[in-house]
Amino acid sequence: MNRRALLGAAATAAPAALAMPALAQSAPELRWRLTSSFPRNLDILYGAPEMIARRVAAMTDNKFQIRVFPAGEIVGGLQALDAVQAGTVECAHTAPYYYVGKDPAFAFFTAMPFGLNTRMFNAWYRHGGGAALAAELFGTYNIVAFTAGDTGAQMGGWFRKEVKTLADLQGLKFRVAGFAGQVFARLGAVPTQVAAADIYPSLERGTLDAVEFVGPYDDEKLGFSRVAPNYYFPGFFEPGARLHLMVNKAAFEALPTAYKAALEAACAEADQDMTARYDAANPQALRRLIAAGTQLRPFSREILSAAWKATHELYDETGAKNERFKTIWESYRRFRDDEYTWFRVAENSFDNFAFTASQTVR
Amino acid sequence: MNRRALLGAAATAAPAALAMPALAQSAPELRWRLTSSFPRNLDILYGAPEMIARRVAAMTDNKFQIRVFPAGEIVGGLQALDAVQAGTVECAHTAPYYYVGKDPAFAFFTAMPFGLNTRMFNAWYRHGGGAALAAELFGTYNIVAFTAGDTGAQMGGWFRKEVKTLADLQGLKFRVAGFAGQVFARLGAVPTQVAAADIYPSLERGTLDAVEFVGPYDDEKLGFSRVAPNYYFPGFFEPGARLHLMVNKAAFEALPTAYKAALEAACAEADQDMTARYDAANPQALRRLIAAGTQLRPFSREILSAAWKATHELYDETGAKNERFKTIWESYRRFRDDEYTWFRVAENSFDNFAFTASQTVR
Repeated sequence: MNRRALLGAAATAAPAALAMPALAQSAPELRWRLTSSFPRNLDILYGAPEMIARRVAAMTDNKFQIRVFPAGEIVGGLQALDAVQAGTVECAHTAPYYYVGKDPAFAFFTAMPFGLNTRMFNAWYRHGGGAALAAELFGTYNIVAFTAGDTGAQMGGWFRKEVKTLADLQGLKFRVAGFAGQVFARLGAVPTQVAAADIYPSLERGTLDAVEFVGPYDDEKLGFSRVAPNYYFPGFFEPGARLHLMVNKAAFEALPTAYKAALEAACAEADQDMTARYDAANPQALRRLIAAGTQLRPFSREILSAAWKATHELYDETGAKNERFKTIWESYRRFRDDEYTWFRVAENSFDNFAFTASQTVR
Repeated sequence: MNRRALLGAAATAAPAALAMPALAQSAPELRWRLTSSFPRNLDILYGAPEMIARRVAAMTDNKFQIRVFPAGEIVGGLQALDAVQAGTVECAHTAPYYYVGKDPAFAFFTAMPFGLNTRMFNAWYRHGGGAALAAELFGTYNIVAFTAGDTGAQMGGWFRKEVKTLADLQGLKFRVAGFAGQVFARLGAVPTQVAAADIYPSLERGTLDAVEFVGPYDDEKLGFSRVAPNYYFPGFFEPGARLHLMVNKAAFEALPTAYKAALEAACAEADQDMTARYDAANPQALRRLIAAGTQLRPFSREILSAAWKATHELYDETGAKNERFKTIWESYRRFRDDEYTWFRVAENSFDNFAFTASQTVR
């Protein structure tokens, strides 16, 4: 860790509180900057920290102000963690799995192939030991983090041609990030990193064969359906994807107790609200996409089964090389298997009957 | 509405704020009482308002204190709404569907047979018009309400004997409340109200044939498995069950802006946290129940299909007699059908593959 950066962070955060007279210290005027990993036009992702900022301001009589900046204005979308660690900004809204290059364990706190879905993640994080494991990991980066949004289960991506069997995946150039890329590599595909602006032309030229992004509402904006009309599901590599508010530790510790509580509660509210926004927006977006020619297709059992096997081999191998990953995977996996067993009973049996009945009866 | 009660409520709520000197008005010292509809031993249900109270205190430097009372100490569990409306207490933590006797539309805000599940309700409530419809309904009772907890999909109940066909439901004495009772009546069962303390002896004597309560974690405490070992799923009549914090309107309006925001955010946090607690606790409880002899059984397609039909007939007939119910049902149903269609794609296809794979592969 960078000692100068740590000192820099403290210097950024502390003065406002320290300079106040004793009586007013419990409610100091603070101005924080927040860097988002997302552009403004991804309005549900970008909207979460705006909601947090509005709520925190309201709870503190406008004394604690957080200004939200889109990706690229202060630092790039993938430099958010570094900026918080170094104290360049007090906080960021970002996805921990962008930082798997630093430590693969970050993936647990956004999305794991065949991992916990949105509700199960909440249960593990809040009441299954997840938050303590997250605090340890983020703590080594000088960061206090709060969950602040989830997309729900994502889609599997846009493919120029149909992929029915494992043979169809061989050599397939797929823009897919992180662990999902490693899973697809084991299945014979070629995971590729392409900057957001280049995805569409790359698909059009055939430099890319497929791309995954989020789900109908966000994907619709990027126009993939025109060049890669086969829209696969489920996004087995992201059964939920969690965003976090990452706060510089020194900045957080310098907050009065009431502001700490306000920030944490505001994050919890935004956490749930993001999923609600996606769930409300996705059905109409999917309908529009289908009307525009999108072909909705399920991944075959052959592909899903091979992916399940490759995923678990990858977890075991990653754990053998990384003690922290192994520790978290053991907690996460035990919890996941229990949740899968329980959710089959009440939730899944309801879904399977009712989702079908609503389309066939009356 | 009762004019004296309204005046009483204002008198209860306003003085603390009005008596403060001008400078301190933005952060007055307040003491509120909250009546819960639940006993302390249902610790997840009872814990939600305790969490809200702790968080609100922390956000206001302990100036805004809410004291939580279990059902029966101030008023009975089913009198919570009346107590808030009359201003006997400033607020309550309760389930709106306890009050379907006043207006059947209250059911929309807790649980509807074949209705929205936990996540879908969030989407409808926050971003599908639900909150505005709730505000209208609660407003006529002098109440401002915030969602504050959900159980997730419930179980279908404990049955002394197996129920395989509609014939097995004829004359079955089933302790089940509200709309679910009306659905079962249409299927030939005899819905019955039995006070909580009498359920177990009634099952033992055969005065009751079946009882539904919540899910494994809460049900385990009541010991039903010993006398009615057939534990059915899914609880199609409660695909989620939402609790609310109901606040006396005059008391709420008298709050400073910062306290209003703190209360609302604290409710949102507790809303999500309750489901996380249930999801974390239910798997182990179900395992213990099965080890103790519980027989886990799915409702047959014959019963589910008949229930689906009876449910929708009931909604149409209720709407024909109650304009508010009809208006809300139109919003709720359109939203539900869209959600069911979308959730089949990414969420349900993931669940169906992964839940099975985790039990069969590796």
